Amino acid sequence: MDTLEAIMTRRSIRAFNSKPVSESAIKRLLEAAMNAPSAGDGRPWHFVIIDSRDQLDALADAVDDGNAMFQQAQAAILLCLDRRLEKFAGFGDKDCCCAAQNILLAAHAQGLGAVWISVAGIPPREAGCRELFQLPDNIEPFALFPLGEPVEPLPAEYRYDPARVHHNQW
Amino acid sequence: MDTLEAIMTRRSIRAFNSKPVSESAIKRLLEAAMNAPSAGDGRPWHFVIIDSRDQLDALADAVDDGNAMFQQAQAAILLCLDRRLEKFAGFGDKDCCCAAQNILLAAHAQGLGAVWISVAGIPPREAGCRELFQLPDNIEPFALFPLGEPVEPLPAEYRYDPARVHHNQW
Repeated sequence: MDTLEAIMTRRSIRAFNSKPVSESAIKRLLEAAMNAPSAGDGRPWHFVIIDSRDQLDALADAVDDGNAMFQQAQAAILLCLDRRLEKFAGFGDKDCCCAAQNILLAAHAQGLGAVWISVAGIPPREAGCRELFQLPDNIEPFALFPLGEPVEPLPAEYRYDPARVHHNQW
Repeated sequence: MDTLEAIMTRRSIRAFNSKPVSESAIKRLLEAAMNAPSAGDGRPWHFVIIDSRDQLDALADAVDDGNAMFQQAQAAILLCLDRRLEKFAGFGDKDCCCAAQNILLAAHAQGLGAVWISVAGIPPREAGCRELFQLPDNIEPFALFPLGEPVEPLPAEYRYDPARVHHNQW
């Protein structure tokens, strides 16, 4: 899929059919994530692939409002932040966001649906992920991405707003 | 350009030739930025297009180590965060990062070079941008993107690292 088309037609997908997600598709998502830019090229990220039905169902309980999503999802990715790898203190969150956006776009380009489920900043989700995946103390669960083929494709939304654009000064 | 190709071949470009950047190319970058996902669909962003030579040269002084970049750049975008538009307090930074990554990918897909220059978290740059662009008090300068045609394309880097991948648990 063309890059601008992918950017302009990607939607957050929260309902999935039962078609499995291939290992090769997941690997492409992780390749895309790890090719994101990061401050000082620090790459302060780790990823947990979740593809066992037991762990996906357990995620449905660990994430307060995500039950249906993770019960339907055929796979998921947990993106984690390791601040020990930050080249500039405090910039690791931005690096993880770039990796996250690459995952969302690479999923859409492959015909997969995905949605960004925030974990960092939401203590019950952080604790749930930390326990479920037995994360080391220094690893921060950052965001979850349930994956699957969309039950139905959503129409593109055009969000450009000229009121948000300024020219050479505010 | 294919989406996965754009993600896998994008590099940070800091040296530009003198070919102008078209208004239509810049508009596509802003369309891409504003089609990023945001928490609660808050879209807490504003953009300043910088395409006057005077303002680009002034940016070279406002950004401590960016002189050559902004002197060479044919245009730039300043991405700003308006926390009053956040749907969930504190999530606006993540929203802006997604917009930023879309700008970088949409630039590369159009044959333009760009690089993410952090402003938020670096007080002298924040003050420089705030003064130069006369930003309102509630608007936070977040990141700058100098733009232009690359002096030379950089080879792709493959950054996938299997040591960062875990399976169903850490």
